[in-house]
Amino acid sequence: MDKFIVIGERIHCISPAVRRAIEERNPAEIIKRAKEQLEAGAHYIDFNIGPAEKGGEDLMQWGVQLLQKEFDNVPIALDTTNSKAIEAGLKVYNRSKGKPIVNSADAGERIANIDLAAEYDAMVIALCAKEGITKDNDERMAYCTEMLERGMGLGMEPTDLLFDPLFLVIKGMQDKQKEVLEAIRMISEMGLRTTCGLSNISNGAPKEIRPIMDATFCAMAMQSGLTSAIMNPCDKRLMETIKTCDVVNGAVLYADSYLDL
Amino acid sequence: MDKFIVIGERIHCISPAVRRAIEERNPAEIIKRAKEQLEAGAHYIDFNIGPAEKGGEDLMQWGVQLLQKEFDNVPIALDTTNSKAIEAGLKVYNRSKGKPIVNSADAGERIANIDLAAEYDAMVIALCAKEGITKDNDERMAYCTEMLERGMGLGMEPTDLLFDPLFLVIKGMQDKQKEVLEAIRMISEMGLRTTCGLSNISNGAPKEIRPIMDATFCAMAMQSGLTSAIMNPCDKRLMETIKTCDVVNGAVLYADSYLDL
Repeated sequence: MDKFIVIGERIHCISPAVRRAIEERNPAEIIKRAKEQLEAGAHYIDFNIGPAEKGGEDLMQWGVQLLQKEFDNVPIALDTTNSKAIEAGLKVYNRSKGKPIVNSADAGERIANIDLAAEYDAMVIALCAKEGITKDNDERMAYCTEMLERGMGLGMEPTDLLFDPLFLVIKGMQDKQKEVLEAIRMISEMGLRTTCGLSNISNGAPKEIRPIMDATFCAMAMQSGLTSAIMNPCDKRLMETIKTCDVVNGAVLYADSYLDL
Repeated sequence: MDKFIVIGERIHCISPAVRRAIEERNPAEIIKRAKEQLEAGAHYIDFNIGPAEKGGEDLMQWGVQLLQKEFDNVPIALDTTNSKAIEAGLKVYNRSKGKPIVNSADAGERIANIDLAAEYDAMVIALCAKEGITKDNDERMAYCTEMLERGMGLGMEPTDLLFDPLFLVIKGMQDKQKEVLEAIRMISEMGLRTTCGLSNISNGAPKEIRPIMDATFCAMAMQSGLTSAIMNPCDKRLMETIKTCDVVNGAVLYADSYLDL
């Protein structure tokens, strides 16, 4: 079994500091956040520039090159709804430390991002959704199969698609949680890889209990087969939980010092 | 789905203070430990008197009556290898707050403890073992079925048997962990209830990481269907994890204050 893949979410244009940094092409904040996440154990850095309708191509290239130059070609998830910006980023991406991740495709309007991933030999996050919130696991699995077939038809490895069943907020959609975990299990049992926006589940909950919810849900999802997450690697409790699941799953050999590695 | 059942393990004759208290029939230490565990959220109190070959019957009756008198007929797990002592305890047990738990039977020499549970309308912890460490899940499931049939043949409800696949230490038996979790899942899918000695998994690990290991493994096991554990309810991280799993599983309704309940 492979180690869980941690995709660090903290370079996101929803943060005012990040937004300012990317508008001004000021590297300091970007580099600071990447460094913190890598030191905390992130394997991938997500670079989220939002819709980036104007100048997205230049911006994505700037970010990819900045991060890869500063951090020894760190692998990156290229995160924007602007496909041209993703493609521009892929063109300058150095894959010596791992394939880029296209973030993201879905079974609806964004399905062509799978084609983009296939063309550039990238991985792609494949949201099991078409429009609105997916109704049930029959629908999730139909979208999963649809995207899998599209990728395989274009010569992709099935494991280069990271299927995301879309985690839902517990506060408000408590009755959906077991179903999402079951979707993870079904996708995993097909030998496929999965990912998620982990902190969705604790949205709106009191700040001090969110790490407890995220860590606990992550352990449950890893037991269901979850293989990666877009998450905050600076959340100590969450990282401790993931490292322990890796040990239980046999992905990492137990040592008394396993939390420090 | 029912709430997870927490069986507090902290009145155990392996502790010198508890051993002294039961030898001297001194209530103070016993009451103190029961109180701490109940305040921390334990549903059952395990009263472990060890082999108790001499005077076990009197001792078990003393403990059961002491605890039930002091704590409004708190439900108790009667824990000893001396079956006569368990029977003596069952005779004075008040079941107004829940059935007693016979701790424990197995598929070998202790199988007659299932008969005892049937006779007294008690629950029983049914260890999926005969002698030594069980080889694999085929063997675990064979023992499970054997004990289930014995109990049902005597008129027991299947859910009054709490099947324990026997949790194994990670440090030394890392490669067995997935199998044990799979056993939990198989037993659960038969509609049966399960339990475990949770802290077995972190035996020998550094003191400060044991709560991390116990909490994480518990979440993984609950996702596999685990319905109860013999454990330390005073372990805050573990209790937070269990309460969160109960919310995810829909056994408890989400409220921002759910950890305080």
